[in-house]
Order: sequence, then C-alpha cells, then structure tokens
Amino acid sequence: MLIVLDSPQSCARVGAHLTGEGALVEPFTDARPPLLAVVAGAPPAEQVRGLAGVVDVRPAAPYLSTRHAGGPRTVDVGGLVVGGDAIVVAAGPCSVDDPTRLGRIARGVRDAGASVLRAGVTKVRTNPYGWNGPGPGGLPTLRQAAQQHGLRSVSEVLGVDDVDAFAESVDLLQVGARSMQNIPLLRRLGRTRRPVLLKRGFGCTVDELLGAADHILSGGNTDVILCERGIRAFEPGVRFSFDLSAFALLKERTRLPVWVDPSHAAGDARLVGALTRGAIAAGADGLIVEVHDEPAHARSDREQALTLDAFTALMAEVRRIAAAVDRPLAEAR
Amino acid sequence: MLIVLDSPQSCARVGAHLTGEGALVEPFTDARPPLLAVVAGAPPAEQVRGLAGVVDVRPAAPYLSTRHAGGPRTVDVGGLVVGGDAIVVAAGPCSVDDPTRLGRIARGVRDAGASVLRAGVTKVRTNPYGWNGPGPGGLPTLRQAAQQHGLRSVSEVLGVDDVDAFAESVDLLQVGARSMQNIPLLRRLGRTRRPVLLKRGFGCTVDELLGAADHILSGGNTDVILCERGIRAFEPGVRFSFDLSAFALLKERTRLPVWVDPSHAAGDARLVGALTRGAIAAGADGLIVEVHDEPAHARSDREQALTLDAFTALMAEVRRIAAAVDRPLAEAR
Amino acid sequence: MLIVLDSPQSCARVGAHLTGEGALVEPFTDARPPLLAVVAGAPPAEQVRGLAGVVDVRPAAPYLSTRHAGGPRTVDVGGLVVGGDAIVVAAGPCSVDDPTRLGRIARGVRDAGASVLRAGVTKVRTNPYGWNGPGPGGLPTLRQAAQQHGLRSVSEVLGVDDVDAFAESVDLLQVGARSMQNIPLLRRLGRTRRPVLLKRGFGCTVDELLGAADHILSGGNTDVILCERGIRAFEPGVRFSFDLSAFALLKERTRLPVWVDPSHAAGDARLVGALTRGAIAAGADGLIVEVHDEPAHARSDREQALTLDAFTALMAEVRRIAAAVDRPLAEAR
Amino acid sequence: MLIVLDSPQSCARVGAHLTGEGALVEPFTDARPPLLAVVAGAPPAEQVRGLAGVVDVRPAAPYLSTRHAGGPRTVDVGGLVVGGDAIVVAAGPCSVDDPTRLGRIARGVRDAGASVLRAGVTKVRTNPYGWNGPGPGGLPTLRQAAQQHGLRSVSEVLGVDDVDAFAESVDLLQVGARSMQNIPLLRRLGRTRRPVLLKRGFGCTVDELLGAADHILSGGNTDVILCERGIRAFEPGVRFSFDLSAFALLKERTRLPVWVDPSHAAGDARLVGALTRGAIAAGADGLIVEVHDEPAHARSDREQALTLDAFTALMAEVRRIAAAVDRPLAEAR
Repeated sequence: MLIVLDSPQSCARVGAHLTGEGALVEPFTDARPPLLAVVAGAPPAEQVRGLAGVVDVRPAAPYLSTRHAGGPRTVDVGGLVVGGDAIVVAAGPCSVDDPTRLGRIARGVRDAGASVLRAGVTKVRTNPYGWNGPGPGGLPTLRQAAQQHGLRSVSEVLGVDDVDAFAESVDLLQVGARSMQNIPLLRRLGRTRRPVLLKRGFGCTVDELLGAADHILSGGNTDVILCERGIRAFEPGVRFSFDLSAFALLKERTRLPVWVDPSHAAGDARLVGALTRGAIAAGADGLIVEVHDEPAHARSDREQALTLDAFTALMAEVRRIAAAVDRPLAEAR
Repeated sequence: MLIVLDSPQSCARVGAHLTGEGALVEPFTDARPPLLAVVAGAPPAEQVRGLAGVVDVRPAAPYLSTRHAGGPRTVDVGGLVVGGDAIVVAAGPCSVDDPTRLGRIARGVRDAGASVLRAGVTKVRTNPYGWNGPGPGGLPTLRQAAQQHGLRSVSEVLGVDDVDAFAESVDLLQVGARSMQNIPLLRRLGRTRRPVLLKRGFGCTVDELLGAADHILSGGNTDVILCERGIRAFEPGVRFSFDLSAFALLKERTRLPVWVDPSHAAGDARLVGALTRGAIAAGADGLIVEVHDEPAHARSDREQALTLDAFTALMAEVRRIAAAVDRPLAEAR
Repeated sequence: MLIVLDSPQSCARVGAHLTGEGALVEPFTDARPPLLAVVAGAPPAEQVRGLAGVVDVRPAAPYLSTRHAGGPRTVDVGGLVVGGDAIVVAAGPCSVDDPTRLGRIARGVRDAGASVLRAGVTKVRTNPYGWNGPGPGGLPTLRQAAQQHGLRSVSEVLGVDDVDAFAESVDLLQVGARSMQNIPLLRRLGRTRRPVLLKRGFGCTVDELLGAADHILSGGNTDVILCERGIRAFEPGVRFSFDLSAFALLKERTRLPVWVDPSHAAGDARLVGALTRGAIAAGADGLIVEVHDEPAHARSDREQALTLDAFTALMAEVRRIAAAVDRPLAEAR
Repeated sequence: MLIVLDSPQSCARVGAHLTGEGALVEPFTDARPPLLAVVAGAPPAEQVRGLAGVVDVRPAAPYLSTRHAGGPRTVDVGGLVVGGDAIVVAAGPCSVDDPTRLGRIARGVRDAGASVLRAGVTKVRTNPYGWNGPGPGGLPTLRQAAQQHGLRSVSEVLGVDDVDAFAESVDLLQVGARSMQNIPLLRRLGRTRRPVLLKRGFGCTVDELLGAADHILSGGNTDVILCERGIRAFEPGVRFSFDLSAFALLKERTRLPVWVDPSHAAGDARLVGALTRGAIAAGADGLIVEVHDEPAHARSDREQALTLDAFTALMAEVRRIAAAVDRPLAEAR
C-alpha cells in the first residue's frame, strides 16, 4: 500500500502511528508529494484514508511516474524545455573521440537541428575486451564541444562514484539500458539536482521502467526523462525490437517526457530513418541518435551511426512529421 | 540452391539435365520468372550459371518476394492500386453482423476515407467456445455492404475448401496470422487469381513471412500484400508487441506492399492512434483497422474496435502524416 | 460461459431454452461430457445452474483439456498406453526415405527401446524451395517399416483432405507446431477416431495449446496427446527455447499426456541429451526424437538428428532417469 | 582481437610493441593467463602469432569463461567444492529475518541436505515501495545462522561500496540478474578473493553471461559460478521462462560450474519441483532454492518459497535423480 500525504510532517506522524499498530513502513519524505509505503501489516484502506494528512491511498506502485494530475511534466535541461510542445533532438557519436572530430560533429548536428550533443565517455561493454572510452577524464572535451556550438550535453554515467563528476560537466545524466535496475545508482541520482535520461532495459516491462523512475523521483529529483531503445525479442534481422505498442502504452501511463533511441533499437543505420519518423508521429518528445562524421572510423557501434549528411536529411523529415502532429523542433541556443 | 530461368522451357530442360546428374530438383514453372529449386545434390554454382536459359543462381531462399528489380510491385485490388503512392485504408467490424449495422459501418468508414471494407465471416478462435461468425454464408452481406458504398472488400479465409467461395465474393483474400504457415492454404491461394493479404504470424520472423509469400507467388499468383500485426514478446500491458524495427527491415527486404494492422497489434482502442500514425510515418502502404458503430455490442474483439467518431478523427491525422511523407490517401470509388 | 451437461438431450433442451431468452449459443453435443457455450447474452450463472441437466457452469474456457476429475487420461496408440506409468519413446528420421534405410533405422530405434516409429511424408517448409517429402504416397513405406519391427507409427498430417489417408496408415496423427491453430484441421481431427499428437505452436501460450486441444476434444475425439517442442525467444545460440517452466505449468493444468520433442527444441544434436534427461525428470510422459543412421545424408534437419549409437546411449540414460521418478519404459510389441 | 600470453611480462612487452605500431590495446595482466585485447588497429593474426610470448590469438571474446583446456573448473566455497562431482544445494529464505526464524530455517534445510544457507539482506525492488531488507547490518545474523548449523552462506551484493562488508561475512557473493551487466560491480568483484555466483540477466543471452563472467575473471578472480534463473518470454502463466535449451548450450560452452535457481524461474512453489528435477537431470552443478518455514509470513516472494516439508520431499527426489546421473549430493560440514 502506498499512502500519499500532504506534508513531510504528516508523513512522519502517520508513519509512527502505523508502526505503533504493527505495520512495517518505509517513508519517502523527500518525494513530492511525500509518500509512505506500507510494506507489511497494512490496515484496511478506508481506515488509513481517515487519518489526518492523508491525501490518497494507492493499492499498487509506482506512483510518482504515473500520477496524472497537473498535465505533462516538463524537464529543464540546461534551459531547454523537454516534454513541452517542442521536440528535442540529441545527436552525436557513440563515444567521445578527439576534440577536433567531436567539434566537427557538434557543429554538423547543430546545423542540422539538434540541440543536445550526446557522446559516451565510459562505455558498457558486453565483455571486457572492447574499447571502454576515455573515462570521466573525457567529460571536459564533451562539455567544451557542446558549449562552443550552443548545445546542451548528455552522457551515460555508470558508477555511483562518478555521479558528481558527471553532474558538474553535463546537462543531462543518462542511465543506460543495462543500468535501469541498478538500484544504488538510481538512488544516488535521486539525490542529485541534474535531470536524468532513464533508458528502458531491453528485458524490462513498461511498469518496471516506471518503477525505476520512481526510485529516482522518490529520492527528491523530479526531473526524469524516459527513453525507449528497443527490447529483446526473436527477430534475428535486427539487434533489438522497437516495440511501438509498448511506447504507446507508456505515453498512456505517464506524463513524464518520453524519448526514443532509434539507433540502438535498430542497430543498423539503414533502419534509423523509419524508426525515427514512426516514433515522432507516435508521440515521442525527443530523440537521441548516433551520428558520426566518418562512421567507418568510429571506435564502437559503427553500423548504426548516421553520417552527417544522412542526419541532415533525416532532420528535414523529422520537421515535416513533427509539423503534422503540431509540434515544432526545439532550437539550439 | 535456387535457379532463375528465362522460360518454362528452360526450366524443364535444366531440371532434366540436373536430375540426370543426380540432383533432386523441384520446378516452379508457373512462377514469374520460372524457378528451379535444387533440394539436394547441387553442382557448383558457376557450372549452373553456364547452362543455357539460366538467368541467375541464388544460394538461399526466398526469392520472389525479395527480388528488387523493377521497383515496387503494385497489387490491383478490385481496381484499387495497392503499393503505389496512395495509402489504402481498410476498415470495418471484426465480424460480419446484421446487414443494417454493417451498412451503417460501411457508410461511416467510407465517409471518413476508407476504401476497403473489412469484416470476418469465419473467425479463428483460440478455443471452440466463442462465436465463430456466420461462415461463408455471410459473404453476400459483406459484398453487398461494400458495393453499396463504393468500397472493396476483404475477409479472412481459413480453409482450402472455402477459397473458391471467398474468391467469388471478396476483392482481397486475407490469410490470418495463425494461418501464415498453413502450407496447403498458401499453395491453394497460389492457384487463385485474387490478391492475397498475408499477415505475419505472431511468432514468425520477417524471413518466414517472405518465405510464406513465396509459397503463394511460386504458384503463379503474383498479387501478395504483406501485413504486420504484432508479435509475441514479454510486455504484459499489450496484447501483442508491434515491432517497428522488423517492419522497417521488411520494407528493406521486399518491394511487395506492406500493410499494418494496428488494432490487433494493440488489442486496445486507446493505443490504435499512436500505432497508426507511427506506421504511416515509417512507410506503411496501407492499414487495416477495426471499427464498429457500437463497440460495446461487438460480438468479438470489442476492446480494440474504434468508434466511427474515433476513426474519423484518426483519418484526419492519417491524412496529415501521409502528406508529410508525400503520400495521398486512396479514394473509394 | 461454458455449461457442462449430463446428456446430449439436456444440451439440446438447455440450448433451446437459452436461445429463447435471447442468448447466442453453440452446442458441443459430441463432446464428453456434452458442452454448451454461451457466446453472448448469457444469463447469470446461478440461474443457469438451476436448470435441469446442468452439471457445471464455467466462466472461462478451455474445459475438456483442463478438467481434473478422474485422474490422468490415458490414450491408446495402437494398443500402447500413453499417459500411464510407462514412458513412450517415438524415434525415427525427419522424413520417410527409401525403405531399406527406414527399415534399418526402425530396427535400430526398436533395439534401443523406442516403441513408435516417427517419419514425415509431407514436410512443412518455411519456403517452397526445400524437399517436401514423398507425400501421402510414402505412408505405406512407413507402415511397413513400423509393422515389420513391432513399432507403432506417427506422422504429421498437414491438410484436411489428407486426414483419411493418414488415419488408415498410421497409429498416431501428428499436428505440427505451425498447424496448432489450423482450426479446420483441428475440427476434422475431432471427427476421426485416431489419436492425435498436438504440438505447441512456437509462438503460442500454454492456454492456447489447451484451447487447441479442446477444438479436437469437443468434436468427439477424446484421444489427444500434447507435445512441447520449444518456443521463440531471444537466445541466438539455439533454434528454439525449451521452456521447462511452461512445461511444468502444463502438467499442472491438464491431465492429458504431455510429450516432449527435444530435437526441434534444440535444433542441435549435441543438446538433445540434456533436454531429454531434463524433460523425463520433470514429468514428460513420452518423447519424440529425430534419429538417422547417417545424419549427414538426411534430406532435412540433419543438424538435429541423433545417430543410432547416440540414441542408444541416450536411451540408457533415459531408463535411469525414468527409474528415478518411478516410471518404466514402454516396450515395443 | 584477443591475445593470450605466457606471462605478465610478455603482456606488457607485446602491448608496448603493438601500441608503437598504432594499435589501441587494453592489457589484462592479472587474468590467468594474461590477456591483451586489441581494441582497434590490430595487425594480421599471423603476424601477432609470431611475437615472443604469444600463446594464442582469438578473433572473438569471451575467452576466460569459455576456454576448455584442463577440464571443469571447480570453485572453493568455504571449503566446499563446487563444480566437481557433488551437487551443491543452497537454500533459505528470500531475505534475512529475525535470528530465531532464520536459525529454524537453517536447521531445516541442513537436515534436508542443503550445504549453503541463502538469504538476502539488500533486496532489489522493482519500485522503491517494497521491503528492502535489513541492509548489510543483517549479515552477522546470516553468518551466525550458517555457522551454527555447519552451512556456508550466500547473499546478494548490490553496490560496489558494499563488497568488502559482504566479502568479510559470507562465503559466496551473489550478483543478481538485474546486476549482471553492472560493470563497475563486476570489476570490483574481479579484485576480491571471494567466489562469485553470477546470475544470468533475464533479458541477456548466454554469450552475454559469459562476457559478464569474463569481466570478473579478467580482473584476477578465478572463482565464478554461473546461474540460470529464467528469462523473459511470452508465457503469462509463469513469472519467467526457464530455458532448458540455453542451459544445455551454456554447459557446452563453459567449464565453469552452472547452478540453477528454480524458485525465480517459476515464481510459483508448485512448479519448483519439476524444474529442480529437470535441471539436475540436465546437468546442473548446484541449486539455489527459496525455502521458508512459514511462506505466508515471508516479507517478500512468498508465492515461490517452499515449506520445509516440501523442501525435504524435494531433496529426496533430488538425491534419486542425482544418483541416476552418477552424482552425489555435497554434504554440509
């Protein structure tokens, strides 16, 4: 049982009361609104509803990512509004490379209409023998390339101990699909003040994604953007299956912004265009796309990176589809 | 090994020659172009290439649904061009009901922009205890409702023995997802002259769908429209997962027209709009949507049927998305 | 709603009564016990329970494959008891080949402990370019090889028009995974008197398998053996995933015998041993395994066929595992 | 490219040489044998093979978990040999509870034949509102209960910062399915000297599990036990699908010990028996099973916990199946 309260004080008071009655409770005082989870020994819902300070009683979780009061939640990413009318596009290479190349890509994606620069510094590898990226030491290169071209920046953070370094350098902290249920990381991000881009794990359900978002939101960080990036299914011709019906379901269940990563869903640059157009038409609030000036020279994921020319052509299509669903494209600074 | 030949005569001649050399062959003389499959004991490809009448030698199947020469294949459905520029929309109830209601739905979907009326007469039921539809005896009701409102008709045929009755009554013969690998039915449809709408089995790969299409095409029926309708994956919140990446892959691999069935992919009327917009933007050549004037009174699949009002609103969106990818909507007669 | 009745007469009477009250009913008079499905307009269950001749009222289907009264259902396959204590093993080549080879394999599997000879005559092919088998004309070869070595026979029937020919020649009619929801075929098999081996479709749930069984059982044929053969999931290293938990669930839900096909679940002869041992230990009532005297010369599925030596070694393991769960092996005649 | 070397010195020397030639390398000096991954710019394999100190050159990863030289790898868990002839059984409640109850369960599972006590102290929750367990502060309770009854202990470690505390208290460190690709955690475990029980992520392939194992092994910790616990597939009747074919594949690909967790694979106590028997027969080297003295009072996962009586009965079956595959059960101290 999940109890929604009107103040942290009520949260403490009701928690003490229920504990006295033998219940096992877990308070989320920093959450907005404050929540009290009754893990075991809950009294009947009607009885709880009658207690002073109780706003609502929910039989099931999650709550913070699914409540629908007050319209869509917008998230501020370095001054850029995510989740409003405008569609936000993040683009860039799989991983931070040398500054000259990164600057060239940043200028290219900005000119084509992106407003956020993406690039990884610590890569999650299926086995230890691939390139792991430059590590957090590569963050200044990313920040500089982004700032020089009026872009915000996003990069994936892997370890709890790296959160501060990332929060100082980038505008948006990405949680990768493989970390979606890394609870210590989610909790740590709940205590930072940077917005978080939370990707769905490829074996996780829509409700599990929302539950992971609640892990962050209940810690007090209200700025979470969700991201679909493909699931594991049986089609051998694609790296992941992009489940558009689950995406539609997610849009029904949450008012948090939802982005789409067509590059990882496809694993193949030739399919990225169709997925991107489809996602925008279906209601995506933003995109995160892999772009490289010379994909053949990328140190990782070269099959799925678009060239700058292909990305520019795609953005022209995106603008048209976005207009057909009455949405403009967000502009870089 | 699959050998492409310049004429039925070459097919017979090369077949006899290879048999004489100990190979096991299967000729497809009616296919266009004629094909000869070497099932076992094939000589080296170069040697076969040298034989008179041999146009091409392919190591792997399928062939007819995947060859890319000559641009997209259009299919004529009662005078309506499918697979050209215009997007074709089929709509109607899950199953044929009384003539008055069916006429009312037909008029409604026609007015909203559909050009084909869909309605089932023999339903595939997961167990024997549901409503099975009126049977082939319901076909005249469907034909009449369609003709009266200038619409073409499509209905699912289940049994080989029903093919003739369906071919006489409807413009487009549908093979349902559960029949995609019903080989006797596919072979029988290869010998009819009506176009076929072949839905992907919910547990089948893109290549298996193309292989099933080749079963029809190799029999001499060149008019096959493919249809995506969702696959089995793990998300409990939707009836099926609509794999947009597999759809994009399919568009890469075939030039046959590809439709989408958003109703069965979603299993929930609230999700149909997002799937429809996404599919059109991603390149679908047509749609087949469940619409009912009073979904609560539908005898089957009532959760996923759109009301006429919802369908009319959806069609306005479809027109805008279609225009954004430079495609008009096909018009009813 | 599904109504269980005490006699065909009650079935007719209650059906007429409910129709008179405006319900849409479908009677299954030949089922044992007779059933009446109320497809639409059902009155409250308590009211129906009060009618003369009504034994039970069930809210949901399937019924015949799931009822638990009276202990396990045994099926008679040419005098061999399936679903009793003894485990039955069917073995043989993917497809009927020349009589000499088939005889050699028949003797080999019989000597190793099999009591049923399996061999296909009409193969379901993913595309039309593979070997389709000799057709029903190959049935006498199968029957002769089986009889000569004291074995029963099983073979897959694909088309409704072939059912009579198969029923005359083989002891057990197999419905392949791709035909599990071929409703006309299931209905036709409901009217034959031969037992049926019904394989689970690789994209179908346990309840869909039971529903398919009810399609046969409700037609009056009470002899159905179910068979697990692997499902579609995401592991690229195997052809299909053999879901042992669904198998365990199936054993909970039905008292019909359940066999396992480890050859198709694995798609790789090296994995067949582990799957076989696991399935027997988990409660399988029988096995159907691909065995060939020279797998490299098999015309189809050669990767998954065991050699006679490997099969003989496997049967020694099967005997030990079977004994550990207190079950003997069925003996050939 | 992965280069296997004869000594750490060769690893350093060959690494320096290839770097000088423009390659990007990553050395794994602590791995046994030492490895050098060439991430980019690798010279031809033959050329590398000719360098002094090079033992082998592999085109693809993983390596350490898949090499087959030298027979099965056994792992020492507090003096207990895992991966040898004897099958090891870990059992206990989902989470550490009060000491009296835990002691009662410990005695019960020991008497029934378990040799390891399992209990979680930090639970991974799908959302933040469930019981999270007592935290690392609960470890002494676990250790004491285990030692008192001659059992070893296993518990899941979630965060990198907790590794030392767990390594001091328990004999075996468990990595849960949701953490299988938590790279910082895997790396940290590669530098501890406690054995690790690594569960397969429910959306991850067999090769990804082996790659995760290499993340630990390449850090210098050679004691890894793998564990299958079910995958995400489409069957709604079970919490997870237990893919016995992938398990068989895993046993083919690695000589590391492989355990099975039937409780999480089933999510239902009634199915645990069949899965356990099947896994032992198929070759599992050990089991980890949830057992509770009063499942209805368990604070988490109560549906899947066996009672002590049910566990005792199951262990009698396990002994018989194990004997049928010539394996004894490991004994507690």
